[in-house]
Amino acid sequence: MKNITEVLEWRYATKKFDTNKKLTDEILNQILEAGRLSPSSLGLQPWKFILVENVELRTKLREAGYNQPQITDASHLVVLTYKNSLDEAYVDSYLKYTADLRGITTDDLKSYKDMIMGSITSRTPEELKVWNSRQVYIPLGVMLTASALLEVDTCPMEGFDTNKFDEILGLNEMGYSSTAILALGYRAEDDDTAHYKKSRFGTEEIIIRK
Amino acid sequence: MKNITEVLEWRYATKKFDTNKKLTDEILNQILEAGRLSPSSLGLQPWKFILVENVELRTKLREAGYNQPQITDASHLVVLTYKNSLDEAYVDSYLKYTADLRGITTDDLKSYKDMIMGSITSRTPEELKVWNSRQVYIPLGVMLTASALLEVDTCPMEGFDTNKFDEILGLNEMGYSSTAILALGYRAEDDDTAHYKKSRFGTEEIIIRK
Repeated sequence: MKNITEVLEWRYATKKFDTNKKLTDEILNQILEAGRLSPSSLGLQPWKFILVENVELRTKLREAGYNQPQITDASHLVVLTYKNSLDEAYVDSYLKYTADLRGITTDDLKSYKDMIMGSITSRTPEELKVWNSRQVYIPLGVMLTASALLEVDTCPMEGFDTNKFDEILGLNEMGYSSTAILALGYRAEDDDTAHYKKSRFGTEEIIIRK
Repeated sequence: MKNITEVLEWRYATKKFDTNKKLTDEILNQILEAGRLSPSSLGLQPWKFILVENVELRTKLREAGYNQPQITDASHLVVLTYKNSLDEAYVDSYLKYTADLRGITTDDLKSYKDMIMGSITSRTPEELKVWNSRQVYIPLGVMLTASALLEVDTCPMEGFDTNKFDEILGLNEMGYSSTAILALGYRAEDDDTAHYKKSRFGTEEIIIRK
């Protein structure tokens, strides 16, 4: 197995996928599971990951995604979405779930609840939305890394019409909003971008020691 | 080596670090390098990672972080920051860097520049700030995963006074803002939270198939 640096050097934003190569269910599930296991602020997991398998839907999404071919040509497509709001009912459901899992009562989690509710009520609805929208980039980073470790190519994308995506996927009714796409698959042999040098600022530029 | 699912099941938000165990430089550098290699929207890398080694600074940060012990007790502390704004000068410096790296001219990247500038000018200053602040959660996710692979414990944290952090670290002058902490180290043997069941919503709840 390669080390993590080699793995991340190998990965790149794949522009052209091999339409004949598909992820196995086992590999796909490991990547989705990595997303599910990702941490989030206060553990609230304000996200859903939409795995779009329906060909017609993917065609519509491609139209709403400036016709970028990865949307239909990648083996699998995951749309990352965040929760539009947070309220006490959601927190209670999370705490009930957690208490059941740990064999304790929600009363045992009272101070945890107070902390969460303090965090929520100190934010405006707009701030809550921004806060949630940030959290979902954690599983994006985790899934990108997991994919590269599994030798799966990825293209993370933000260039799409989020309102149209929300409409096509029925996200408004769910109370969620789309923010990023993760296209998963295997690079086409003739994807020239695979050979571009990775453009990252130097260590001395990015890592500031204090 | 464990598989990625086992690695992510192993990791948890470490509450109590062993103050005697330190990351080696080699391990630390691999984690920071994973952050540096992380992708970002349009490749702009609107972030700096502040590695705080000065003991006095860490003590001050702990005060500004509701006295959470991880801030001083973890082996290493990284503060993730994002760029407050984006402008043509920054884009030009990025494109110059990229062109030099690839042995091409910035003229060859003209259409790429147009795309980036279109993305920037379509956003208000506040939207740019939010956009940048999201991006930095990608390297957070990548570094969390890299750490777990290297058997390094982590505590990602948002519960701190970002204004005070910005002041203590001189971020305002740099044009950056703090948004999250990554505490790195090794769990103390008596950290009870290590044994809590990980509370994640089920697959059927989080992964929606369409």
